[in-house]
Amino acid sequence: MNEFEVISKYFKHLSPEQKGVIIGPGDDAACLQLPPNHLLLVSTDTLVANRHFLTSWDAYDIAYKAIMVNVSDIAAMTVKPLWLTMSLTLPEIQEIWIEKFSLGMKNALEICGVSLVGGDLTKGPLTINVTIHGSAPKKLITLRSGAKPGDVIYVSGRLGGPSLAVKSIQENQSEDKVQKELVTLLKNPQPRIDLTNLLQKYATSSIDISDGLSSDLKHICDASHVGALIQESAIPVHPLVQAKEPAQAIQYALDGGDEYELCFTVPALKEKAFLAELSKWNKSCYKIGLITEETDYLILRHDGSYEKIEVNGYNHFK
Amino acid sequence: MNEFEVISKYFKHLSPEQKGVIIGPGDDAACLQLPPNHLLLVSTDTLVANRHFLTSWDAYDIAYKAIMVNVSDIAAMTVKPLWLTMSLTLPEIQEIWIEKFSLGMKNALEICGVSLVGGDLTKGPLTINVTIHGSAPKKLITLRSGAKPGDVIYVSGRLGGPSLAVKSIQENQSEDKVQKELVTLLKNPQPRIDLTNLLQKYATSSIDISDGLSSDLKHICDASHVGALIQESAIPVHPLVQAKEPAQAIQYALDGGDEYELCFTVPALKEKAFLAELSKWNKSCYKIGLITEETDYLILRHDGSYEKIEVNGYNHFK
Repeated sequence: MNEFEVISKYFKHLSPEQKGVIIGPGDDAACLQLPPNHLLLVSTDTLVANRHFLTSWDAYDIAYKAIMVNVSDIAAMTVKPLWLTMSLTLPEIQEIWIEKFSLGMKNALEICGVSLVGGDLTKGPLTINVTIHGSAPKKLITLRSGAKPGDVIYVSGRLGGPSLAVKSIQENQSEDKVQKELVTLLKNPQPRIDLTNLLQKYATSSIDISDGLSSDLKHICDASHVGALIQESAIPVHPLVQAKEPAQAIQYALDGGDEYELCFTVPALKEKAFLAELSKWNKSCYKIGLITEETDYLILRHDGSYEKIEVNGYNHFK
Repeated sequence: MNEFEVISKYFKHLSPEQKGVIIGPGDDAACLQLPPNHLLLVSTDTLVANRHFLTSWDAYDIAYKAIMVNVSDIAAMTVKPLWLTMSLTLPEIQEIWIEKFSLGMKNALEICGVSLVGGDLTKGPLTINVTIHGSAPKKLITLRSGAKPGDVIYVSGRLGGPSLAVKSIQENQSEDKVQKELVTLLKNPQPRIDLTNLLQKYATSSIDISDGLSSDLKHICDASHVGALIQESAIPVHPLVQAKEPAQAIQYALDGGDEYELCFTVPALKEKAFLAELSKWNKSCYKIGLITEETDYLILRHDGSYEKIEVNGYNHFK
């Protein structure tokens, strides 16, 4: 089976005709139409075997995760994802593996309403690159740089699970029920596209927590030239992390990456309306602190003391 | 040095403010503005170490080639490239290597008038993914599917050099002058963005010769539901190939990939005007045959016999 046959059998059906796709895969480039007055959003991410996923994982999960972590970058801009290209580097053609991979792609694409518009299949060490595109009018796009002093800081979900899963895998912990649930969090990230419309309306800044809350909130502060004061007791720790590692739980929630929940800011005057709509849609978000004018980056500990937040996010070349 | 420091030191200056770049690297996604009534063109390619380039190559050449082969896909649509994202996977941070790589990027980007708008730096086996974007009004975009019976088939340059270079590298041939010139052709592809305006005006179909002329012209025929008749004596063989491998020269020119010249078709009635403009701009292209209504795919040999063209283009998983 050569690359053209693989593409035709396992990837072609992932490119349904969809609004905006003038030419999908099969020419030298895809040809796409943005709605009038929309800006284009583009983000790219590579997942490397045994760094971002294990080769022992089911190919379904690898594909699913590759797409979801990229969709998350568009969700972080409070924009709907539209089109995706995937470059897949494989050591060999194993049809069973590719079939599962293709199924994982299909489900992720369907959940997110995204079309595969192009890609590339090459031989080499297992690596997956995804480039994701979205579009929106300028006024609906939320940047890292929009946070203002007095804004309230929120995160969209409970944190720490994926990074504890990574540690438990590294330590070869036995596969009990908790461990399995943790690994599921790691394998199946859920980008918060369900919050896009709401955040377009209320958020002044937004980022996805891929490096870890302590790193990513700092990115917002740096881009917005502001500081932050967060409260240890308000940080939403994932219940599995609380149960398994109570002493370290807060550290996993603060520094753990690979989350794909959003951290965002809401003006204090709009907070009430935001919470009312959030509740109307049956969603929960967690208020963790405030944006400050001074550029200090502080956490209020349980004992009432203030500490500078250490930025311990993931560094790929540590 | 961590990834953020590397990006800041070696890649940030590759993202000058340019028309259309509303937000460049540094947020979750780049934010880009297309001119009104333009369609978006997107193409992606991954280059894997020791498959698409050798790790022994100068990092400058690796970066230069990675960008140029991607630009070529946009040139093949007869569109100007605009924006590029690069995902770079490196085994380790070697500053000297990265500095050279960054310089190769800079020069390729400047030659093509392209801005780096985003990317990703991860640890793993050396792999480079580039996603390239361009934009144009629909009527100026040239697809593979537009060839019509009676159209004249052209290629934009002399063929066979890069594939002979690959063979000579595989055979560890000594580095004489010819060998060096061949390897330069392989390392420094020149995407034909100089022909974009002309081909927008005259070409009915277009493709870049990345898999080899026999494969790529077949892609045009299949997409356009037509056949082709080409003439062996008209195929422009690169003089270095003619000199070094006279007996095999035509085969290198027909089947050799990694070329990045364009193969395109021009309506017979417009050929005279096309050639006049080509000559005005001091460019040469080579007429190699005709598009036919019958979907046969034939070559007229030197001895006057017709043969079916074997499609022997590059298959990544051979």
